[in-house]
Amino acid sequence: MLICEKIAEIRDFVRKRKGQGKTVGFVPTMGYLHRGHTALVERARGECGAVVASIFVNPLQFGPKEDFAEYPRDFDRDRRMLEEYGVDALFYPSVGEMYPCGFCTHVEVPGLAGCLCGRSRPGHFRGVATVVTKLFNIVQPDRAYFGQKDAQQVLVIKKMVEDLNMPVEIVAVPTVREEDGLAMSSRNVYLSPDQRAEAPVLYRSLQEAARVAAGGERDARRLVEMVRDRLSRVNGASIDYVEIRSLPDLKETERLDSPALLALAVRFGKTRLIDNIVLEV
Amino acid sequence: MLICEKIAEIRDFVRKRKGQGKTVGFVPTMGYLHRGHTALVERARGECGAVVASIFVNPLQFGPKEDFAEYPRDFDRDRRMLEEYGVDALFYPSVGEMYPCGFCTHVEVPGLAGCLCGRSRPGHFRGVATVVTKLFNIVQPDRAYFGQKDAQQVLVIKKMVEDLNMPVEIVAVPTVREEDGLAMSSRNVYLSPDQRAEAPVLYRSLQEAARVAAGGERDARRLVEMVRDRLSRVNGASIDYVEIRSLPDLKETERLDSPALLALAVRFGKTRLIDNIVLEV
Repeated sequence: MLICEKIAEIRDFVRKRKGQGKTVGFVPTMGYLHRGHTALVERARGECGAVVASIFVNPLQFGPKEDFAEYPRDFDRDRRMLEEYGVDALFYPSVGEMYPCGFCTHVEVPGLAGCLCGRSRPGHFRGVATVVTKLFNIVQPDRAYFGQKDAQQVLVIKKMVEDLNMPVEIVAVPTVREEDGLAMSSRNVYLSPDQRAEAPVLYRSLQEAARVAAGGERDARRLVEMVRDRLSRVNGASIDYVEIRSLPDLKETERLDSPALLALAVRFGKTRLIDNIVLEV
Repeated sequence: MLICEKIAEIRDFVRKRKGQGKTVGFVPTMGYLHRGHTALVERARGECGAVVASIFVNPLQFGPKEDFAEYPRDFDRDRRMLEEYGVDALFYPSVGEMYPCGFCTHVEVPGLAGCLCGRSRPGHFRGVATVVTKLFNIVQPDRAYFGQKDAQQVLVIKKMVEDLNMPVEIVAVPTVREEDGLAMSSRNVYLSPDQRAEAPVLYRSLQEAARVAAGGERDARRLVEMVRDRLSRVNGASIDYVEIRSLPDLKETERLDSPALLALAVRFGKTRLIDNIVLEV
């Protein structure tokens, strides 16, 4: 696996592979990889002639009081995992390589970025949209792979790609979970043993709501209340949001007339976890 | 010359030409072409294997009280001119093709877009950056050509391309002028005969200031005052701005220690004209 710290190097790699007629799949990550990430790589490996991954903890998508400095990092382990899963080239730039002095341009998708995680994390999706635009322009992949766990991120990126006519196909890959249902996340490592034992309640409460919706409940507020009620009884959990929103435009929804996103964010101490499920009707 | 109203058509054209190993030059315009535009085409024709032009009056870059509806249009004349100058394909999309229902994403370059024309025309450069991003993603040119008359636009686009790592080279082409020095502009057609007779004062005042700067004057305020004084004596002219700003970052400048941009915008009745000159030191 080729490791490229410079933009010119990864561009050169991609140019050569495209010159050989290969399609290029791209898996952007912030590192500290888990099986959610390797599922993205496996999917890309199956669909593309060349697979590029990136590891870049993007300062632009963290708020001033968020965990950029403490975000977990383990480059050697990540590198070995990506190599093992068959990644051809890893783009691993420094912050200075991505954001040189004087950097100021940004990309915004205001229609989708103001609610859910965007309300709790102002500027987050602007940082995501901007770095993803940069990574797409650098790597110029044919397809890029994102995890459905970050459902709003997937919708923002799909909308940005569509609105700006970016020549890349976005592939959303189902959330990978621990045995007990907790969605894989690099931030799970922050959880204390007690918090870790409680955390599966997130997905269980989503599943319960999905079952009730599948049973005929169409009132979004009642479904949300059900989830909130369940979560509020958990020791040490504090709800950031529980919401049902339309797909793909994330509008507020009172009645479920078409598939909708039930999404939540919950804090365990300082650790903020998110999860979501699509309510089929 | 191929005329493409659909994104898929122009993409198909470019893909084929690139497949033949040709470099692609791109000249984006809002139509109502003049010799400033044909200078861009000539430059592209000399440097690239295939030349694509676009005509699109971009509503996003016009303010609510600006001249979008009245902006001059003459497609048949434009088409003939582009064909005569050797353009291979013309992208001529509808507003609906570029901005389908629900469009919301935009690109901003706040560091450069808030001053000069950006102050008089809030949202203008956001509209420019957004449409140029779309056009670049659609056409995927190797090089794109812009006129130096719109100096701030060139700087905004170069900064955007650099910050977002867009794989395109921006070429700025010198302003083309009428015999009497008036910069070519599609909006010159709005001028009454009297206004047209006065309008060359814009470039004459810029040239005077450049001569005084070349003669050793380093005080930006004095140079600006010289130009303002000259313009204020013109019948029917109303100054929007006259400013000297650093290159390429458009910071306010008190002393000329390096080449700087002297730029102005002046209204003749409802018609707003701009011009600029680089002060060499």
